Amino acid sequence: MTEKPKLSIGLIGSGFMGKAHVFGFATAQKVFDLPMEIELHTLADITDAAAARAAHDFGFAHATSNWREMLDNPEIDVIDITAPNALHKEMAMAAIAAGKHVYCEKPLAPSALDAAEMAEAAEQAGLKTQVGFNYLCNPMMRLAKEMIEAGELGEIRSYRGLHAEDYMANAKDPFTFRHDPAGGGALADLGSHALATAEYLLGPIREVIGDCVTAISQRPDGKGGQKAIKVDDIGRAFLRFANGASGSIEGNWIATGRKMQHDFEVHGSKGGLVFTGERLNELHFYSVEDAPGRRGFRKIEAAPDHPPYGNFCVAPGHQIGFNDLKAIEVAGYVNAIARQGKEPFSFRDGLRIQTLVEQIQKSSATNAWISV
Amino acid sequence: MTEKPKLSIGLIGSGFMGKAHVFGFATAQKVFDLPMEIELHTLADITDAAAARAAHDFGFAHATSNWREMLDNPEIDVIDITAPNALHKEMAMAAIAAGKHVYCEKPLAPSALDAAEMAEAAEQAGLKTQVGFNYLCNPMMRLAKEMIEAGELGEIRSYRGLHAEDYMANAKDPFTFRHDPAGGGALADLGSHALATAEYLLGPIREVIGDCVTAISQRPDGKGGQKAIKVDDIGRAFLRFANGASGSIEGNWIATGRKMQHDFEVHGSKGGLVFTGERLNELHFYSVEDAPGRRGFRKIEAAPDHPPYGNFCVAPGHQIGFNDLKAIEVAGYVNAIARQGKEPFSFRDGLRIQTLVEQIQKSSATNAWISV
Amino acid sequence: MTEKPKLSIGLIGSGFMGKAHVFGFATAQKVFDLPMEIELHTLADITDAAAARAAHDFGFAHATSNWREMLDNPEIDVIDITAPNALHKEMAMAAIAAGKHVYCEKPLAPSALDAAEMAEAAEQAGLKTQVGFNYLCNPMMRLAKEMIEAGELGEIRSYRGLHAEDYMANAKDPFTFRHDPAGGGALADLGSHALATAEYLLGPIREVIGDCVTAISQRPDGKGGQKAIKVDDIGRAFLRFANGASGSIEGNWIATGRKMQHDFEVHGSKGGLVFTGERLNELHFYSVEDAPGRRGFRKIEAAPDHPPYGNFCVAPGHQIGFNDLKAIEVAGYVNAIARQGKEPFSFRDGLRIQTLVEQIQKSSATNAWISV
Amino acid sequence: MTEKPKLSIGLIGSGFMGKAHVFGFATAQKVFDLPMEIELHTLADITDAAAARAAHDFGFAHATSNWREMLDNPEIDVIDITAPNALHKEMAMAAIAAGKHVYCEKPLAPSALDAAEMAEAAEQAGLKTQVGFNYLCNPMMRLAKEMIEAGELGEIRSYRGLHAEDYMANAKDPFTFRHDPAGGGALADLGSHALATAEYLLGPIREVIGDCVTAISQRPDGKGGQKAIKVDDIGRAFLRFANGASGSIEGNWIATGRKMQHDFEVHGSKGGLVFTGERLNELHFYSVEDAPGRRGFRKIEAAPDHPPYGNFCVAPGHQIGFNDLKAIEVAGYVNAIARQGKEPFSFRDGLRIQTLVEQIQKSSATNAWISV
Repeated sequence: MTEKPKLSIGLIGSGFMGKAHVFGFATAQKVFDLPMEIELHTLADITDAAAARAAHDFGFAHATSNWREMLDNPEIDVIDITAPNALHKEMAMAAIAAGKHVYCEKPLAPSALDAAEMAEAAEQAGLKTQVGFNYLCNPMMRLAKEMIEAGELGEIRSYRGLHAEDYMANAKDPFTFRHDPAGGGALADLGSHALATAEYLLGPIREVIGDCVTAISQRPDGKGGQKAIKVDDIGRAFLRFANGASGSIEGNWIATGRKMQHDFEVHGSKGGLVFTGERLNELHFYSVEDAPGRRGFRKIEAAPDHPPYGNFCVAPGHQIGFNDLKAIEVAGYVNAIARQGKEPFSFRDGLRIQTLVEQIQKSSATNAWISV
Repeated sequence: MTEKPKLSIGLIGSGFMGKAHVFGFATAQKVFDLPMEIELHTLADITDAAAARAAHDFGFAHATSNWREMLDNPEIDVIDITAPNALHKEMAMAAIAAGKHVYCEKPLAPSALDAAEMAEAAEQAGLKTQVGFNYLCNPMMRLAKEMIEAGELGEIRSYRGLHAEDYMANAKDPFTFRHDPAGGGALADLGSHALATAEYLLGPIREVIGDCVTAISQRPDGKGGQKAIKVDDIGRAFLRFANGASGSIEGNWIATGRKMQHDFEVHGSKGGLVFTGERLNELHFYSVEDAPGRRGFRKIEAAPDHPPYGNFCVAPGHQIGFNDLKAIEVAGYVNAIARQGKEPFSFRDGLRIQTLVEQIQKSSATNAWISV
Repeated sequence: MTEKPKLSIGLIGSGFMGKAHVFGFATAQKVFDLPMEIELHTLADITDAAAARAAHDFGFAHATSNWREMLDNPEIDVIDITAPNALHKEMAMAAIAAGKHVYCEKPLAPSALDAAEMAEAAEQAGLKTQVGFNYLCNPMMRLAKEMIEAGELGEIRSYRGLHAEDYMANAKDPFTFRHDPAGGGALADLGSHALATAEYLLGPIREVIGDCVTAISQRPDGKGGQKAIKVDDIGRAFLRFANGASGSIEGNWIATGRKMQHDFEVHGSKGGLVFTGERLNELHFYSVEDAPGRRGFRKIEAAPDHPPYGNFCVAPGHQIGFNDLKAIEVAGYVNAIARQGKEPFSFRDGLRIQTLVEQIQKSSATNAWISV
Repeated sequence: MTEKPKLSIGLIGSGFMGKAHVFGFATAQKVFDLPMEIELHTLADITDAAAARAAHDFGFAHATSNWREMLDNPEIDVIDITAPNALHKEMAMAAIAAGKHVYCEKPLAPSALDAAEMAEAAEQAGLKTQVGFNYLCNPMMRLAKEMIEAGELGEIRSYRGLHAEDYMANAKDPFTFRHDPAGGGALADLGSHALATAEYLLGPIREVIGDCVTAISQRPDGKGGQKAIKVDDIGRAFLRFANGASGSIEGNWIATGRKMQHDFEVHGSKGGLVFTGERLNELHFYSVEDAPGRRGFRKIEAAPDHPPYGNFCVAPGHQIGFNDLKAIEVAGYVNAIARQGKEPFSFRDGLRIQTLVEQIQKSSATNAWISV
């Protein structure tokens, strides 16, 4: 039993996503036979006290209130950024300059221009990057992709994608950073997931035309007044894919009643697939090759037949959860760092989604199809 | 027990929809206490023999191979047109000129211009008209409309509508009249239903921008060759409603696996509604007024609480079917003729849908939002 | 075009089931090419006025307040009994003695002894009989039976059947004839449907042991007092089928929230079937012969592939309703009278179900398996 | 920040359940703020090499091929038994004798007699015990229990419980230890879960009558011959609860197509609950207190409103998985050891389930209701 090389993590931030990353590291380590051993090295937060408490709770060996200290530490291999969005670029560029791999929560950057700079810097430095698009790590999503690529649906013709939730449906909830015109809005926040899934499954989108709508025109500013909202609550787009198919997506954060409507439906000449994020362990498959009178959408339940489900559970139908998707994402990233495959979703991929979002926003303003 | 006045029907055509109308007349008569008594007077078909056979099978007293004969017959009150689409206008205009009420299958006419002429002629003559948009007659659709109008969903913000089937998914199936550029295509054939439902529920659409796509570019011409397809297989549109909401619809006849995806989802400030035509006896309702921790989409099953379900069955959950919707449509039309309310879907309504379809097609070609 | 022989109906009763029968006659006539022409001859009700009104509404030519008059009328072929349960036997025996075919709503009789007398009398007289077990007439039920018989599920091993509703769930609702120990209770009323479906699908039950429970021990007697309830609110049984499978059924009329839980699940060595009466146009089928990783319950939607759905609608997925099931039942009965096949559910079949119900009740009292 | 007391684990076994326990320890530690710090001390397996490898992979500090060594080590607090069932009792009794808390996979012991001995020994020693009934740890199960106890369903009247899978459906799969009459069979293996859920939700069962069936009478013995099967493939029971309700359960391991049918349905005077293990993040709730015409089963999705879901994810609808249930189980056990509440499922609870299983088996053989 040879010792595995260590992969030392320096985490910035300890909020919701920081915690999810730590869950991901812990689970990935237990569930997968990773080529490297993850070490929780240092946790950086705003104050020494906060950092120390989080480091203890999460199992990091060290703590700091100055994230830049981690850049100079040769023991740290990966800078993991879960700090506020506005800081992503500065932190990532500094980490790249220091020769660290970078794991960054979405959105990668407020603009495609920024994202491009980040992706190029990392690539030139030969560093591995990762953006947190965990829904793509679902084994049923991978199954769908494999079925499409294997031709089980025949020629792909049409696509519908969605990501709708309702956390912004209450007009009395105040203005937040998510409403900031620089990078905010439902299309950027949720539509980005729908776009990522669309390209993951069908390959590149070639043209878009968008429809971005602000439904709640103002929100409390937290100081007793109201603040005008400039970002979209609903972002829609029609799509043309390079493979010839057409489709649509919608990102919507005021979809009252919906908590995880990350849905897609694909139609090909030989079959169809239907998925809803509300039931992430199911994929529904219709095949024209089934016998007449016996055709229907099959509810395929996640099982060891659908890697990497079997790493979590040897029995079918027992179901994995959201945090398990994060562990799959972490495992993919560690494999990529160990030169075993490509990152699940690199900065280059993040740039791509940011570009799509911006072009859809632009086409919505100009009412014109835009090539992407 | 006074005798009811008679309402005498002259039916043109005896195919699928002719049969469905006859089912509708028979069931409506039994299920509802109509203000008039429907009499199946004359059936017109292409040949004397065909007309005689169908008249006998369907229970009509007379038969003819010359539909124009019915126009001069003072005993006949309603001309019911289920002949090929291309003949709708000629027949309807003649019937109106003869002072008959007209019941016409969809599509009303190949163009909005034609439909307008028909609607105006009927209105000037004070005649009652009906186009067969039966999905609107579903008690669960009526429930949805009433809930929206009563404010149970609060302010309406977003809408998604669909009508997808797969009867054109096989590229080897030949060219038919449905592929004729004059009035054909998935948007006109199925998207029209999605548009009718959208306006039924939310009120007038004010602006549209479309995306009409031909996915199967040629089909067998029935003579050993191929014929180019000009009409859309998928017609999509973004919508702005007069009430301030935005939305989208899609008509799709190559949606492999779908047989009756007449779906909608509405989001308001206080709730959401979800419906699928695949389960026409259910409406799913989410209310933010339910207790925290107890919220969720409720599967409301059709019941006597939801008129006119109770006319069909006094017990909840027993379910009505497609032909029952046709009976509700017939009943609404008979009531309108007896001056008890407006027609469920008049020529004026049919003109409206035809206008929407054409404006969406036009906006798809010009990439511009169009007011409607 | 030769004239079809007439089949003249004398209907007793004009309540819920009387109306449903009339719907069935009307629809069957339109939807099927029946070998005989149904004629609504006479309607009998309690008073002359009631009979006259119902005869008019339902389209019967004659009316009477004395049902026995119909027995002597040679023009009448079928006596259709939808009168209160307590009168079923007297009426049916009189009709048989008069040489009439008899159509009787369920339950056929308060006891198996009575039912046997009725079945034997009809058979000796060579008359056709029908009991209203309409759920068996569902095309998806027929599909299930055909799949089982064709071996698509392999060797059948286990079965679960249910019929649960909630119309007796309110303890404040008064005592009714359904609570009468002679023939009443949830097992007799609803469990009988579950038993009929079980034998329809798997063939004869050989042994039963029951569990009959009264959950609401008293109900208002309608006179200000309470009346003790002796019949079961829930009737359960374990089953052994002649084919070697084992199973269970439950009849339950206090299943709060359920309106039409007429469900079954069958497991064989090669596949499984799942059905719920709440969605009567769907059958879910799992096959171990599907490719690994692609297995799952298929939602087969009712379509023209599944006779006689196509008689109602030429398009798949449009759905039939409860009243359509009644029309299929009527059609089967008319065919049987015309010597084209066996009755869908004869008095002999009704006797069988009554016997099963009584043996389950008995075994519940004695805690012993009983051969049936 | 004070240091938490350590809780040192000695794990026996490294198979499927051993791995699941380790996942549970890792996740529980990250997700919950536990009162103690879990330390993976020693892993015992059959050989030194196997133990060393597993210890390394799972993160244990030490390894041994002699589990008894762990008993004498004062550093170890908990013996965690995931060894073959036949060894559970010997190991647990030795651990108790050595003053260790014991965590044991199900089934606790091959007989209630053995289980009783184990439960009593642990209680007399004042030690905390845990059996792995993880389904009870589902937040939606806890929600159901709380709703029932709070009276949201009114008086509870009827219950249906299931646990069906299909891993024994192939008759060509060989005889395994699960087919051993000492403790084997579908009722013991899966029905036990259905029983545990039934009592968790409704409180004590008072009487049972069973129906245990062997459907596959022989299986390959692995040596080219066949071996007769004595244990049940399907175990059913009717139940009487102390609260007055009646019900049924079924355990079935030949339910072709089912992978996780851990289902229940409860009916009370005011409402109903429906759950399926195939969708473990949903609970369906019907309330008669909803407005007429608006009633229906609500699909409540797991959310932070339903503890401890929020420990895993702050957003609703994101879903937890099977391994997360194990983490909740671990957390409950650690809390109990720290004297903060009762164990989620102690040896006493395991004895209870074993007793129910045996009484059902006995009543199946004697056809008599048995008090339990």
